[in-house]
Amino acid sequence: MPKIGIILSGCGVLDGSEIHESVIAMLCLDQQGAAYQCMAPDKTFQVVDHRTRQPVPGETRNVLTEAARIARGNILSLTQVKGKEYDGFILPGGYGAAKNLSTFATDGAHCEADPQVTRVLIEAHKAGRPIGLICIAPAVGARVFGQTLHPTLTIGYDKSTAASLEKMGARHSGCGVHEFCVDEANRIVSTPAYMEAKTIKDVYVGINRLVERLLAMIQSPVGVG
Amino acid sequence: MPKIGIILSGCGVLDGSEIHESVIAMLCLDQQGAAYQCMAPDKTFQVVDHRTRQPVPGETRNVLTEAARIARGNILSLTQVKGKEYDGFILPGGYGAAKNLSTFATDGAHCEADPQVTRVLIEAHKAGRPIGLICIAPAVGARVFGQTLHPTLTIGYDKSTAASLEKMGARHSGCGVHEFCVDEANRIVSTPAYMEAKTIKDVYVGINRLVERLLAMIQSPVGVG
Repeated sequence: MPKIGIILSGCGVLDGSEIHESVIAMLCLDQQGAAYQCMAPDKTFQVVDHRTRQPVPGETRNVLTEAARIARGNILSLTQVKGKEYDGFILPGGYGAAKNLSTFATDGAHCEADPQVTRVLIEAHKAGRPIGLICIAPAVGARVFGQTLHPTLTIGYDKSTAASLEKMGARHSGCGVHEFCVDEANRIVSTPAYMEAKTIKDVYVGINRLVERLLAMIQSPVGVG
Repeated sequence: MPKIGIILSGCGVLDGSEIHESVIAMLCLDQQGAAYQCMAPDKTFQVVDHRTRQPVPGETRNVLTEAARIARGNILSLTQVKGKEYDGFILPGGYGAAKNLSTFATDGAHCEADPQVTRVLIEAHKAGRPIGLICIAPAVGARVFGQTLHPTLTIGYDKSTAASLEKMGARHSGCGVHEFCVDEANRIVSTPAYMEAKTIKDVYVGINRLVERLLAMIQSPVGVG
């Protein structure tokens, strides 16, 4: 049974992992016969109130501790993770990907990626492991791999975000919520999910197909790097 | 399109709504053509660290504010909700159902239910609206309706929990995770989800069937009360 690492960034769309996308990734993996292990960086973040959509002054929480809520307690710090030890990785979206896994939310094309996220993704790629990027998580992929691999990615149809990914060296391909974008050579798949979805069933369709392709790539290993 | 109220109790299995069950309830409703509205009581709760599984001394959060994370911000306080204004209700599980929607976690068969939850559920029942109870949420149903309706409910096969429900006046029926329990006369359906599930795909099967039956009941209205 293949085992996929799911890299979470907190718990909640505005300051962490988008919860629906994260749970649906777990569901689709399990439905398609794969195991998963949740993991997250051990660092603090600024809390956003999800009712008012405003930051809560002075309130910080820990990314790993909050991500443990989605993972039902079964979670690893990214410092414990080696990329080659999993058969593939998935990064759900949510602002956490753009605030806690990278600084894309504030710095756009000039963003930095979290060092542990960068290390794990590069290790995974060097070991030939496929990577699935959901919603805004392709911004992380563009930062980590843009200048070296120039991967083809999608964040849906938002022109401004797509332009930022291209500034980082990625190629952008427009894509609907029920579809996904495949970069076969670099073994990276992406799907827009809530960048384009109107309701949760749309998110399921796109992620289900992304997972299907990710698992198919694992069945067809190639030597990369 | 029928509209279902989803009564949340926070965000995280140990001190709020079980996240997987909540998201899967939303997904199944959307996949089966129903709309949903999330809602929760506006009250504080004691935070539990989901990595250590221990309470965090002195840290409280607000049930409604945290539940808004699962709801992507679209949530109502239960004080704004009238039971007859929705076509049905679903209560996901998680310790939040036993700590924030009721005091079942500490008081067992002597528990009290949250006054707003009690009001909304009784209004719903009087208007003939079906109610779906997931995981440990049947404990709330047993408290609210046990002495009047003696509903037949399931929490799976845990004998101690089942005995507590029966002490409150409910009838308990053992049930596997892929099945659900139907009380046709009282229009209450229940399924054990993570009371019995080994993995998330099991949770999907049971909740999907519960939602199917709940929506079928809405298509066959009867005069209750």
